[in-house]
Amino acid sequence: MKHAVTFDLYKTDTRTKARRGCLHTPHGDVQTPVFMPVGTQGTVKAMKPEDVKTLGKEGAHIILGNTYHLYLRPGHELVKKAGGLHKFMNWDRAILTDSGGFQVFSLGKLRKITEEGVRFASYIDGSKHMFTPEKSIEIQNALGSDIMMAFDECAPYPADRSYVQDSLELTTRWLARCKAAHHDWERQSLFGIMQGGTYKDLRYESAMQVTEMDLPGYSIGGLSVGEPKELMYDVLDDCVDWLPKEKPRYLMGVGSPDCLFEGVERGIDMFDCVLPTRLARHGTALTSHGEVKIKNAQYAEDFEPLDSECDCYVCRHYSRAYLRHLFRENEILSSMLLSEHNLHFLVSTMENIRRSIEEDRFLEYKKEFFAKYGEF
Amino acid sequence: MKHAVTFDLYKTDTRTKARRGCLHTPHGDVQTPVFMPVGTQGTVKAMKPEDVKTLGKEGAHIILGNTYHLYLRPGHELVKKAGGLHKFMNWDRAILTDSGGFQVFSLGKLRKITEEGVRFASYIDGSKHMFTPEKSIEIQNALGSDIMMAFDECAPYPADRSYVQDSLELTTRWLARCKAAHHDWERQSLFGIMQGGTYKDLRYESAMQVTEMDLPGYSIGGLSVGEPKELMYDVLDDCVDWLPKEKPRYLMGVGSPDCLFEGVERGIDMFDCVLPTRLARHGTALTSHGEVKIKNAQYAEDFEPLDSECDCYVCRHYSRAYLRHLFRENEILSSMLLSEHNLHFLVSTMENIRRSIEEDRFLEYKKEFFAKYGEF
Repeated sequence: MKHAVTFDLYKTDTRTKARRGCLHTPHGDVQTPVFMPVGTQGTVKAMKPEDVKTLGKEGAHIILGNTYHLYLRPGHELVKKAGGLHKFMNWDRAILTDSGGFQVFSLGKLRKITEEGVRFASYIDGSKHMFTPEKSIEIQNALGSDIMMAFDECAPYPADRSYVQDSLELTTRWLARCKAAHHDWERQSLFGIMQGGTYKDLRYESAMQVTEMDLPGYSIGGLSVGEPKELMYDVLDDCVDWLPKEKPRYLMGVGSPDCLFEGVERGIDMFDCVLPTRLARHGTALTSHGEVKIKNAQYAEDFEPLDSECDCYVCRHYSRAYLRHLFRENEILSSMLLSEHNLHFLVSTMENIRRSIEEDRFLEYKKEFFAKYGEF
Repeated sequence: MKHAVTFDLYKTDTRTKARRGCLHTPHGDVQTPVFMPVGTQGTVKAMKPEDVKTLGKEGAHIILGNTYHLYLRPGHELVKKAGGLHKFMNWDRAILTDSGGFQVFSLGKLRKITEEGVRFASYIDGSKHMFTPEKSIEIQNALGSDIMMAFDECAPYPADRSYVQDSLELTTRWLARCKAAHHDWERQSLFGIMQGGTYKDLRYESAMQVTEMDLPGYSIGGLSVGEPKELMYDVLDDCVDWLPKEKPRYLMGVGSPDCLFEGVERGIDMFDCVLPTRLARHGTALTSHGEVKIKNAQYAEDFEPLDSECDCYVCRHYSRAYLRHLFRENEILSSMLLSEHNLHFLVSTMENIRRSIEEDRFLEYKKEFFAKYGEF
């Protein structure tokens, strides 16, 4: 079977599990490790796609779309009629879509899980819907993403061992159904998702079941859902070794600078998170010296750029005083500029991480980064 | 006295009063007739300045800033410290600032007019402030706009003749004080404002008093404040003749397509209006075939561009179905794209008007425009 998405592993760090690789997709190459900006509803919030392509030095190579949101509005059939998500949203690089699972599970009492799938009520109008593995694939086929994610059950944290065991087994059965429901493997690749919560033996069991399916990539799901970071890192340490070296590994929903470095160090290739754009809309900038809450009075007459070491569009043209003014006035340009800066920060940090792996100085770069960023 | 802003009148239409000219400013030439996008609070809402420079074929040559808003936040002293409004907001082309008068008069019971000026309460925190002609010039000097407007009293419509007469005389006395308060004429030019409501003889009186001051440009104030359009056009017909031919003429706050054409036809050189960006944020697009309310169900599966005759960034890359989706989801990109399209529409219509005057076919272009636009 020829896969839409293939992975080349160029190099593994000599002192850590950090890897330098490349995903080849129908919409171009994605250099890894990679941070993927999230475009929940068919737009990376407050940014033109052209500007997403100027983030960092190379621009974002891949963005994320949300199956759940696009299914509810505007509807996957509509996106299909428009020629697929790439054309609909004017983005000609790679797209990864999630399965919609995480969002429907997050609905709490508004959803019910059965062997068949998940019934849920729309947050828009209360209408009843059902997601199944087959439905998730049908939607993602219509969206036309390069990478589709399997429909899984993401157990909450904390959760009983028996719940997590049942959940990971359901996830495996659903994965088999996803695989059976998908046909055009040359157009779109399906990634499997490992579950198992924070129980390492269950993680192992899930890894064995999921990798058995021989898919072009695997994700580690169910982490960063409320557990302490140290516990997440500890679980990751082992999990990664149970996934095949020649396949890409994706840690879902993770995107704070510390988690990115720790994830890369443990052999993760792909990350995504709404954090940078959400923080931006709430007036927080990520900078090489840590977070800047732009509304603070200390920036009122600060005519320096957001980050003096940043060469992004925002830092080349605007002062903190101006950005503070925009934020206080609730101007749309505030969200636009802070989103662009924050995404640039993560995309270019990831570019630096890639270079540091190539040059055998990943650990040194990590140390330099946090000496300034100040979180460690 | 050497003026910052000078005007060249290139041509007057043979069949109408339409004029083709150019304002030379310290921040570049402004081809007239011109539509000026409004940047109330130091930003043309939802647009990067770089994108404002790509509107139409030449980009906007000049934008407007609001003295009242910038005085309250972030404060004119701050903008001065930042190096002036151009630098603060990253706009290196021309800027015109209003005097703040119109906004404080609009406060109704929150303001009190005396010979000295206007006392008013801030809408932000209720704090007390006073605008005088001298204060308005001080603020505009700090902002560093290329063109400053005189602090005038704009009488409401309808208003008693005696009120309008008193008001225009006060405006003249304030204009003399504005002129006396301004010093660096080579850096910034001051335009006078004619008042007189809809009383033609009072308009004449005001025109004589104001032009007596020999300023580099004049504005016709107090129109488009609620009077019927036909009455506005009738007053304009005569007003314009009382202003010197060799000076630019500015009709404040006017920007609907019909008013632009009618204004140009009557010899107006400059226009501004928040209409295109405000309509955009509310989901209405201006197109060559009239207004499009993008949320309407008829556009749900309409994969054509907003305006098939438009070559703007938005119409080249996005469908009505996508724009409708963004608007319904309250995505920031909706305001960004519709604002860009609407401003492009007015800026490029004005470019077409300029070409039509050059080519002696202004009336023909006007007829063609409205045959499609459908308002006449």
